[in-house]
Formats: sequence, C-alpha cells, structure tokens
Amino acid sequence: MNELAITLDTQNGVYLYEQIYQYIKNEIIEGKFRSGERLPSTRALAEHLQIARSTVELAYEQLVSEGYIESRPYKGYFVCPIEEMYHLEHQKTITKEEVKMENSYLYDLTPNGIEMKAFPFSTWKKITKNVLAEKQRDIFELGHPKGDIQFRNTICRYLHSFRGVSCEPEQIIVGAGNDYLLLLLGKILGENQKVAMENATYQRAKRIFVTSGYDIISLPMDKNGMSIEHLKNSQANIAYIMPSHQFPTGVVMPIGRRMELLKWAAEKEKRYLIEDDYDSEFRYKGKPIPALQASDKKEKVIYMGTFSKSIAPAIRVSFMVLPKPLLKNYEENAGFLSSTVSRIDQAILNEFIAAGHYERYLNKMRKIYRSKHDCLLEALKPFSHRFQISGENAGLHIVLSAKENKVTEEQLVEKAALAKVKVYGMSNYETRCEKEALSEKNKKNQAKILIGYAGLSEKEIEDALSILERAWA
Amino acid sequence: MNELAITLDTQNGVYLYEQIYQYIKNEIIEGKFRSGERLPSTRALAEHLQIARSTVELAYEQLVSEGYIESRPYKGYFVCPIEEMYHLEHQKTITKEEVKMENSYLYDLTPNGIEMKAFPFSTWKKITKNVLAEKQRDIFELGHPKGDIQFRNTICRYLHSFRGVSCEPEQIIVGAGNDYLLLLLGKILGENQKVAMENATYQRAKRIFVTSGYDIISLPMDKNGMSIEHLKNSQANIAYIMPSHQFPTGVVMPIGRRMELLKWAAEKEKRYLIEDDYDSEFRYKGKPIPALQASDKKEKVIYMGTFSKSIAPAIRVSFMVLPKPLLKNYEENAGFLSSTVSRIDQAILNEFIAAGHYERYLNKMRKIYRSKHDCLLEALKPFSHRFQISGENAGLHIVLSAKENKVTEEQLVEKAALAKVKVYGMSNYETRCEKEALSEKNKKNQAKILIGYAGLSEKEIEDALSILERAWA
Repeated sequence: MNELAITLDTQNGVYLYEQIYQYIKNEIIEGKFRSGERLPSTRALAEHLQIARSTVELAYEQLVSEGYIESRPYKGYFVCPIEEMYHLEHQKTITKEEVKMENSYLYDLTPNGIEMKAFPFSTWKKITKNVLAEKQRDIFELGHPKGDIQFRNTICRYLHSFRGVSCEPEQIIVGAGNDYLLLLLGKILGENQKVAMENATYQRAKRIFVTSGYDIISLPMDKNGMSIEHLKNSQANIAYIMPSHQFPTGVVMPIGRRMELLKWAAEKEKRYLIEDDYDSEFRYKGKPIPALQASDKKEKVIYMGTFSKSIAPAIRVSFMVLPKPLLKNYEENAGFLSSTVSRIDQAILNEFIAAGHYERYLNKMRKIYRSKHDCLLEALKPFSHRFQISGENAGLHIVLSAKENKVTEEQLVEKAALAKVKVYGMSNYETRCEKEALSEKNKKNQAKILIGYAGLSEKEIEDALSILERAWA
Repeated sequence: MNELAITLDTQNGVYLYEQIYQYIKNEIIEGKFRSGERLPSTRALAEHLQIARSTVELAYEQLVSEGYIESRPYKGYFVCPIEEMYHLEHQKTITKEEVKMENSYLYDLTPNGIEMKAFPFSTWKKITKNVLAEKQRDIFELGHPKGDIQFRNTICRYLHSFRGVSCEPEQIIVGAGNDYLLLLLGKILGENQKVAMENATYQRAKRIFVTSGYDIISLPMDKNGMSIEHLKNSQANIAYIMPSHQFPTGVVMPIGRRMELLKWAAEKEKRYLIEDDYDSEFRYKGKPIPALQASDKKEKVIYMGTFSKSIAPAIRVSFMVLPKPLLKNYEENAGFLSSTVSRIDQAILNEFIAAGHYERYLNKMRKIYRSKHDCLLEALKPFSHRFQISGENAGLHIVLSAKENKVTEEQLVEKAALAKVKVYGMSNYETRCEKEALSEKNKKNQAKILIGYAGLSEKEIEDALSILERAWA
C-alpha cells in the first residue's frame, strides 16, 4: 500500500485527524489493509494530503492506542494482527420498555400502599437547598461505609427515644433499603445459617435469605407469633420476626413470647434474632410498644428499621443495628464495602429528623392513618357476620378471616377482581410443601384476605369496601 | 393483690393512663405482681383513683398489647407468665466514634483522589430544586428495580455516543455504587464461578467476588493486559478486566487483545467478560477508545460504569449493562430486589446528563486533569534516569517503575512517608502465593509506585514531587 485514497472534507465539522483515523480504521476492519502491511510515513501522508504532519501523527497515535496499528522503531507504522474482525454497530437500539399498567382495577387494597399527600415537601426542599448550600464540596466526597457519623448519632437518639433501642452509633449500618441490608447481613453472618421464619411471613426477606444460601425453616404461628415449641425443636440458629406488627398476619407479639425468644437465642452462641421493625411507627391505641431489641441484654437482636415506609419508598434509606459481637464479622466480611446511600441524602434526612420534622410528620401521619383505620373498621361492620378481623390497631393493613369455609381465598380474590377491586390473599405470603397442601384440601382451610388502606382516601376506602361487600354477597 | 399503691401526679405532664401503665409494668418487672395474679377491675381501680374508667382501660389495653397482662372473659385481667425478666435500660450510650485522621501527611498521592472544585454546584442545586418542584409526589414512590426508564434511556444514549456501547434500556441495571452492583452480579451469575483477574488488579472487586464464593484465578499480565495464554490454560469462565485503563498498571488494552478475549469468551456458553470501565472518561490524547462491549457481537460482555468517579464519590450511582442472555438470570435471581438508588437522585442525574451538563463537565474536567497530568509528567522529568513512567495519557494516576533493583518498593514508600508524602506501592494490588514470593526474592524485583494526581492542585503536585525527588535522592 503506497497511497491512501482519503478525501478530506474541511467543511463537515469533523477534525481532520479523526477523518484520517476513521478512514484507516475502516480499511483495516474491512480487510483492505492486511496484518503486517506498512502504512505511509506521517511525513509522506501529510505531504500527500497537504496538511500538517502533527495531524497525521495524532491519527496514527489514536490507531496505535486502540491497537489497530503499531509503531516499529526506525521502520514505521504497521497494521496489527487482529484475530477476528468486530466493529461498532451504530444501529439505533433505544426502545421503550413495556410498562405494565394495572388500569383494570378501580381500587388496589395493597398492604404496601402509603399516603404521601401530607408529606412536608416544602420543608424537604428547604432542607435540601440548605444542605447543598452549606455542605457543598465535602458532602460530595465518599463517606463512612456504615453511614455518616452525625446521621448514625441521630438515628441512635431517635431509636432510643421512640423505640427504646439501646445502641451506639458504631453498631448502626445505614444502607439503601431493606433488601440491600438483608443481602449485606448474608455477608456479615456468613454461610450455612438456618433461618426460622413464621408461616406466613415477608416473602421478600425469605427470597433474599435463599439467595444467601440459607436454609429456611417455616414454623407455624399461634396467636402470639412464632411457635416457640417448634423453634426449639428445629435446627434453626436464627429467627426472623416482626414483633411490632407481624407481616402479613398483623400479630403483635406479647412480652412473654418475646422473652421466650430472647431466652432461646441466649442459649447458644451463634443464635440470633432478626427483628424487622418495618412499620412500628404506626400504632393507633396506647403508646408504641418498645422494640424487642430494647429487652435484649445478651446482644442477640439484629434490629432492622427503614425510612422507606415512614417517609417514602423512594427514599432508599434503611438501617440495621448489629449486636456488638457481630461487629467483628461485619469488619471482616463486609466492612470494606462502600456505603450505598448518598451523603447528600444522609444529610437531608439527618436534618429532617434532628430538627424535629420527622417526629411531627409521624404524629401527623399516625393521625391520618388512624382515621383511615377507623374508617376501614367502620366500613367492615357489614362483614362482621362472615369475617373475623385481626391485625388492627397497628401498621397499615388488617386481615379478614372467613368464619365459614364455604368460600376459598381464590374465590374471594376473584370475585373482588371481577368488581375491579384488588385484594391480596394470605396464601401469597405462606410457605407450603406439596404434601401439606394436599392434606390441607381435606382439612378446614380458612380463607384469609389482607386489606391495606394506607394509599387510599377515606372516601375511596368506603367506596372500595362497599363494592367488596356486594361482590362477596 | 387487692389494692394498688399508685400515686397519680396530675402536674408532671405525663398522661394518667401512662402513669398507671408504668406503675403496673414496673411492679410486674420487679416481681411484685406475680404471674397469674388478678389485677383490680377497671371499675374498681377507677373508683379508687377517682378517675375515668376509660383511662384505666387504656392503661390495661396497653399492658395487654405488650403482653404483660391478659384479659380473661368474665374473669378480669391477670398477670401473664413471663419467663425471664428483662427491662429497658435507659443508659446514655451515644459516643463519638474515633475518626482516624491522617494528619501526618503533607500530600497524599492517592490514585483514588478526584477534583471537585470545578463541579457545577449551582447547576446541580437548580436541577435538584426543579426536580423536587415538578415531580413532587410520584418521585417519592418506589421505582423500577432496574432504575427508572427515563434514566436508563439517558444512560443508553450516553453510552452509545461516548463509549460506543450498544444496548437497550432493559439491559441496564442502576445501582448504588460498583460494590453493590458486583454483589448483585454475584446473585445474577449464581454460584461456582471461576473468575480470572489480572495480577495486579482492583482488590475491592476481588474481595467482593470472594464474598460471593467465587474462585479467583490471578493471571500474569504482559504489556497488553491479561495474558491470553494463561487465560486459555486456566479453568476460568469469567475474566474481569479494565481495558480502557487498567487499575493499577494503567495499561490500555489494544484491539488485538480485546478480540482475543472476545473470542475466548465466545468459545463456551457460560463464559463472560466483565468490563470495568471505571475512569474511561479521562483520556488526554486523541479521542476516547470505545468500550470493549462495543466490539462484542456475541453477547459476552458485562459492562460496568459509574458516576462516582466522573461526578463525585458521594453520588452513589453506578450501572451495569447485562448481555441479553443474562437477563433471564437477573429476573430469576435478583429481579425482585428493590432499586438501591433514590428516584430523586435518578431524576437529578438524568436531567444533568440529558441537558448536556454532564458532557460539558466532563470536557472541563478532562482539560483540568490533562493539565495536572502534563504538570506531573513535567515534574517527573528529574526522575527519568531512575524510573520508567507508564499508564500515562489516561485515567487519574501513573506508575513509576524503578529501572534498577537497588531499591525496594517498601523503601520508596517509607522514604516518602518520612518526608510526609504518601505514595502507594504496586504490591498493594498484587496477589502472590507464598511460594512465588519466596522465589521472587532471588529474582529481579522491580519496585513500582503509583502516583495519583487528581485530588491535588498543580502547585501541590509540583511541591509533592520535589519533596519526593529529595526523599528518594
């Protein structure tokens, strides 16, 4: 190859060096220049094209750095051997993903709904503005893996005042949501854990434990929560519980059962309780029940809390409190992992809590949710001859249990769906082995339906329940 | 127990029901009320205390809900059996954590530094304000597990224009930092993977693979990166590489080696390449080299990128592009996990990129870093008789290799430390088995030092290097 048939275009806005680079690259890709072939010298090409030699040099350097050609001292530039020819495909590949719209329902009584209308957006915006104005540069630097110390201090104080939790900031790990923290906990505890979970339970937590390779032991519940007898007879070394308001049954675990669990955990070194305190902020009768962790003297409770339920799901900020003996595990197995929460978000939330806005907001929301809760119970009165209500007075959903077994859960869900109301059957949250499921067909099989109300207005609750009443009549 | 010795205080601001609740609870905890003992009826106690019966009822209900007492129909309230007595400890436990200050160094030539002074804070603040003003409510709701579709569309377009990456939004997963995405990748790929890594490599990635239970196979490098011969002879099914600017060596992988790697991956179904494109935005000569993913026609490259390096470490937003065959794995193993990035942060970053601010900022930073880079190379001229420079023209650090083996890496690091300049030895990023380490004592062992310059001003770079020159004289 003695000459290059390049035609440079000085009008199209593309740098000359790039036109040369692109031309030669294409020739190589299309096999017109072969491996080992010598390119014209930079001087010769510059003269041929009537341009500065440095322009050609720049093009050649780019080709060298991308490995298309190589420079051999005193000899010149040669095309590199390239095993297989790939090239950039510049096809337009951006397509819209299908977003599944659930237009078909009038009302969705999801237990995961929350109300955002009363959120103090203007306060949040003001704090955001102040945080960005005051902190500027340092807040853009990487923070502590556990979360910023000021924020952890604030969480400590909040947990102590509102949940009775005793801990030091070093025990707190801030993370981007409960899912992440459960994944992290898998790393902290290490392999081969056997986790007892109530049946029914929070299925998302279960799936995450499964991805951590843990054995799941589903235990029956009685009216006080996880069966302590079954736990004792199991091989489990960890029990995952939600004492404040069990999901999905709504059971509030009484102090006696809590003590039994703490005693069980204290009996062996590697035993722990995971307390998921996901919606403890909302209790409508009497004062809040302290966390299980508050009664733990033996460093056995791993406490998990979140701001995603009490502020907004989009706020990806949760936290866990590790008992001190697990801090060494954390340092060894997970301490090197960077924090998953932006320092800006930490600073905003820190100010929101420390300045008392969070408490005020919780009080406001408790009032709003209590009113919705009471409205729901009122609307459920016509259901009382056929259904028993449980799980009320706390959290954001209740459970309806059919008093007779004439009707199945599936029928209730389907009838509601036909009337365009979405309700959730308890079985979604249950674990059954096939054998049990078969034998249960012959047993009394009580239909149970979850009714979430947080995301609907009182008017909507009344409307949805009156539709449901007719649908189930 | 026939009578309660409660003295109510109407002046202390504590609700009467709470005083009753607290009194009875304490009596139970202190063992003064025994299990099975009957409490006075609500009517009797109300009369005794001269208060409304509903107040006593509220106290009793709270005790019932916490499990201290139970209500027996037609019989009254009884103290529950409680196995072991725990109680809340209200000690003040908030202590300041020790924050290790590295005051002892004048200059830290860390390869992880970045410059934040040129960041367009006012633009960022404005976008934040607009996002919070416009989106309000819906932005506080939980988003798509992979990240919001608008944001993934924007990332797609950006990757296509700037890195030559071909992908669809459905292939993109947004996550809170590279560490998180590598953890997630561990879930997506599943167990029993054998990962080939260059020696030296990015140790954090290695540790995360180890926590996922993966076998790590450390392979030697030549001037083009990972040795393809060693890779072929290994049992590895995954290769982790940084083709744009390998960390820590600074090697830019030429097209030939890239093609060999793609060919290797295409030979077997379960083989994949993980391309960590951590600092590809910064290239100071010619135009950016397209990503390896851009040459991948066989769906073999898992591409990882981050905004933590190019914007700010505190911005916990990274992303990965999964090849289409892995989308099924993602859905099955990890698709249920919630997003770890706040939708507000996604919306802000989306606007920052889509409105062209990101491109302008990168161009500005490229200029600033190029100037620092050139300043460093100038300041390194006096070192040229004893050290070889490599890894220049891209990224945010270079490597100095001692030409003679009179001096060890340890000596260089120590001498620098005595002169209050922190430098980083290559061995920090290397994996050596003991046997190798022993045999290497007899071999030529070239001292290599990383010099990061991004976080220092040009004046500081000159100053630090002149100190280093004297320290190493």
